[in-house]
Amino acid sequence: MTSGVLGNTEVHGTPTERVAAAYRRIAEVDRPEVWITLRAQSDVAADAAAVEQRLAEGASLPLAGILVAVKDNIDVAGLPTTAACPEFAYTPEVTAAAIERLVAAGAVVLGKTNLDQFATGLVGTRSPYGAVRHAHDPELISGGSSSGSAVAVALGIADIGIGTDTAGSGRVPAALHGIVGIKATLGIIPAHGVLPACADYDAVTVFATDLDRAIAAAAVMAGPEARDPRSRNWPADVRLAAPQAPRLAIPRAENLAALSEPYRDAFARTVSAVTSAGMATEEIDISGLLDAALLLYDGSIVAQRYAAVGAFLDTAPAGADPTVTAIINSARATTGPGFAADLDTIARAKAAAAATLSGFDGLLLPTTTEHPSIAAVQADPLGINRRMGTYTNFCNLLDMAAVAVPGRPTAAGAPFGVMVVTPAFADQVAIDIAARIIGKDTAPVLIESGVELAVFGAHLRGQPLHWQLEEIGARFTGEIRTTDAYRLTALDTAPPKPGLVRHGAGLGAPILGELFRVSTAGLGSFLAALPAPMALTSIELSDGRAVIGFACTYDAAGAATDITSFGGWKAYLQSQN
Amino acid sequence: MTSGVLGNTEVHGTPTERVAAAYRRIAEVDRPEVWITLRAQSDVAADAAAVEQRLAEGASLPLAGILVAVKDNIDVAGLPTTAACPEFAYTPEVTAAAIERLVAAGAVVLGKTNLDQFATGLVGTRSPYGAVRHAHDPELISGGSSSGSAVAVALGIADIGIGTDTAGSGRVPAALHGIVGIKATLGIIPAHGVLPACADYDAVTVFATDLDRAIAAAAVMAGPEARDPRSRNWPADVRLAAPQAPRLAIPRAENLAALSEPYRDAFARTVSAVTSAGMATEEIDISGLLDAALLLYDGSIVAQRYAAVGAFLDTAPAGADPTVTAIINSARATTGPGFAADLDTIARAKAAAAATLSGFDGLLLPTTTEHPSIAAVQADPLGINRRMGTYTNFCNLLDMAAVAVPGRPTAAGAPFGVMVVTPAFADQVAIDIAARIIGKDTAPVLIESGVELAVFGAHLRGQPLHWQLEEIGARFTGEIRTTDAYRLTALDTAPPKPGLVRHGAGLGAPILGELFRVSTAGLGSFLAALPAPMALTSIELSDGRAVIGFACTYDAAGAATDITSFGGWKAYLQSQN
Repeated sequence: MTSGVLGNTEVHGTPTERVAAAYRRIAEVDRPEVWITLRAQSDVAADAAAVEQRLAEGASLPLAGILVAVKDNIDVAGLPTTAACPEFAYTPEVTAAAIERLVAAGAVVLGKTNLDQFATGLVGTRSPYGAVRHAHDPELISGGSSSGSAVAVALGIADIGIGTDTAGSGRVPAALHGIVGIKATLGIIPAHGVLPACADYDAVTVFATDLDRAIAAAAVMAGPEARDPRSRNWPADVRLAAPQAPRLAIPRAENLAALSEPYRDAFARTVSAVTSAGMATEEIDISGLLDAALLLYDGSIVAQRYAAVGAFLDTAPAGADPTVTAIINSARATTGPGFAADLDTIARAKAAAAATLSGFDGLLLPTTTEHPSIAAVQADPLGINRRMGTYTNFCNLLDMAAVAVPGRPTAAGAPFGVMVVTPAFADQVAIDIAARIIGKDTAPVLIESGVELAVFGAHLRGQPLHWQLEEIGARFTGEIRTTDAYRLTALDTAPPKPGLVRHGAGLGAPILGELFRVSTAGLGSFLAALPAPMALTSIELSDGRAVIGFACTYDAAGAATDITSFGGWKAYLQSQN
Repeated sequence: MTSGVLGNTEVHGTPTERVAAAYRRIAEVDRPEVWITLRAQSDVAADAAAVEQRLAEGASLPLAGILVAVKDNIDVAGLPTTAACPEFAYTPEVTAAAIERLVAAGAVVLGKTNLDQFATGLVGTRSPYGAVRHAHDPELISGGSSSGSAVAVALGIADIGIGTDTAGSGRVPAALHGIVGIKATLGIIPAHGVLPACADYDAVTVFATDLDRAIAAAAVMAGPEARDPRSRNWPADVRLAAPQAPRLAIPRAENLAALSEPYRDAFARTVSAVTSAGMATEEIDISGLLDAALLLYDGSIVAQRYAAVGAFLDTAPAGADPTVTAIINSARATTGPGFAADLDTIARAKAAAAATLSGFDGLLLPTTTEHPSIAAVQADPLGINRRMGTYTNFCNLLDMAAVAVPGRPTAAGAPFGVMVVTPAFADQVAIDIAARIIGKDTAPVLIESGVELAVFGAHLRGQPLHWQLEEIGARFTGEIRTTDAYRLTALDTAPPKPGLVRHGAGLGAPILGELFRVSTAGLGSFLAALPAPMALTSIELSDGRAVIGFACTYDAAGAATDITSFGGWKAYLQSQN
């Protein structure tokens, strides 16, 4: 291929051409600290050629030739995993499940990227492989811990950067670079082959310049994995879309005290833009969430970090970052009862957060508080990092999903990032809202599950019962037409509804309708509430598919007025005005 | 009322008469160690009179006059909560949510019962209020920790005993007394107002002599509770019934090494009886479950017990049981990293257990290993207790539900108990299987959620597509008839199916069908798989209800043979033979 489409994003060049361009770009930008292991160009080119061969053989590869930068706490078979500590390095024989899925879909791994050591940090400076400088201003930090993957994307080397996120590591670097960071619900993208930071709170994440591309990669990585004990399925009542007019909670002024002045201003302007775009915002008190955030480092949960790498750090390796070592070693002082008490606090905070966000489709937050210089962080290695996690730290502790996208830039034109945060499993709601925020007409699809439902009357968009589809999180997937086996009738109902009646091939006309995807529980709830004379049955579409859609009972069909000639309910309604 | 029905269990006497009888029985049995706080008879009688007043005023009270014994680690407003340690006592102003629900349903609390102190133990001997003697052989232990509640039921004083279960405390005393113990999925019965043992693994439980009565009480107590941060809802795809021929996993011989000889024999005879009753059993290796069980006391999880009462025990109260104190104080040595490592082990064990039990409807286990004397336990206060938890300890750690019922008695005629263990939320499956094991024709209903589905043809019990209803966990709730608005037709389908066609009031005849209750996700999955020409719509029943049920498309109805005169599909099929 010379160009293709990934999500809705155009991809230019053959895989081989794209690899060559990436290595030219790597040379051009001269940012060696981005990579801990950069693969030899010839090896990557061979992978690209293999992808071309698979395409030539007819394989369907949704990520064909997409170039991937992998954070170096995630295993790729044959490449060392260092977690940014040279003495920790091992060379795995098995690739992490998430990366394996990307490669199976045609992606090509460029190499392993630098990070805040052991994924401990939000700054990108805590690495013996060098502080990762910001892509566009090398005096500033890149953000971390997934620093190298974010910068590889922001510099235009990699199409997607794979990170991890426990405290915000998959979101903060996105905010500082004006790119997208996706932190799905815990357990959705498998953590198999990932060195734990806090095993119960680690998510594999994606960076991309574009939301469509990020979600296309996330969709490939998502799904149950037997090798990940914390793998989770989408629940049977998963929401597959945000409503047309989402209700967003935003923090009240006191909750924004941690923001730098330029970011405070940018957040206010972003909120204004969100409101102008037709989304309702309402200030709430999120101090409960911000308090819970403190548990990640100030309480006993840091013991999970010690459980992962403490025994190794106890050997006092030369390459250990002193700040990271101090944080992880602080867990030596934690006790079992203290850990138990913190788990109890987290359980209470989780329930309180659910109550706080009840009635909202999402929570809009600044992703981070400021964009410091590398020098400033080196002068204050804990304080700035701590502040930068104010709005990201609670997310995994409280089992929430987050999509980080660019907000309005600062007055000086610097990037500023916002997050849409939702309860667990409402990832698609967060994506839809984030797409609206960045001005996309259509949002990319992460959650492929669910069943199809064709509607022809009062449930069409703009019609009086459409809210029932919004209520079950139904996702519009397009207009459809039936085969010519159907006749349309006007039923004697309130509100007025059509009855779609199957007479048999050639005995009707193609009838216009709309197709939605809904969860199985959503479909069941919808059916359970369906009043007579409406029915649901298998409907033949003009494109050859059969989907569940509306019909009506025999007696109602017999008594109704035939309106087939209008070709659809909206055309009939217009004729009545 | 002079008699009533609770579940399917008859209740004799008015509430006032029943209270008087209970206090006569209390005097007769002379077991003061059962109670830590026995309410004054006059107070209880006043409550009973109030229930009678509510009934007279027309209240519908499903538990009217049911007498309840409450374990003394559960709050009842105005009565001290001691957790079996006198110095710990406080008098709560608010009643635990679960007990509040029982009382709202007409139950009357007799008092607070003795327990293994701080709910730490499975023996019933660890209490300064006295070792609770077995109801029928005072030389033997009662089992614990919910000892008093179980003995109050077994002695015929209380109708239901409320306990708690972290390691098996709601099941082991049931086994030793030949009664029923229900340990629902964590979070289903709220733990609000319950002193935590291990806050993440505590369940409120029910004892009764009869499964129907126990489930009637559990159903009243179950449901979301805002004051319990660990409260959970039934999921949208909850199973509402066991299949007609359940597949039960049973432990292989090596896994039964901990059983005493009489119990080993009784378990083998129980398994034979289960097989004879039409349930398939298959031996599997449950050593992964048994290993996980050790984490509850041998690992760091005991730190949750210390988090709950450790600071109090550190004051060295005179009434502290030395064995309990030693166990809880052992948590002082646990570390944060050790706790984190154990959480990781539990996460892995949970995933492994799900894989082990995949394909089975439940796991049949002996509830406990032996029935020791009080003297034997006092001579070896840790070893026997530990062995007795072999088959119960893992259940809450791995998020499973359990129903404990009597198995075949020992050769000497002593009680022997078995458990049906299922994954979280499959409680109704466990209840259905347990009911089969004890020879009940119909099982009581714990889970009231779901929607109704009426079927008239190939999905009827015994018909070729009935398995589709089993697959979604549908529960048969009875035969139904339509109004006379419907005609029945024989469609040209394979397998043969009827089409139920609405013609209008008086234009058809009552048609016989069957009603099932299914989860919303089950209904959605069922509809999504429904082939043409079948449809689902709202059906009017002869009893005035409208439920979702089968219809067919207009063209199919028009082309089919009218078989209304048969009154139902099975009658038509018989006529064809």
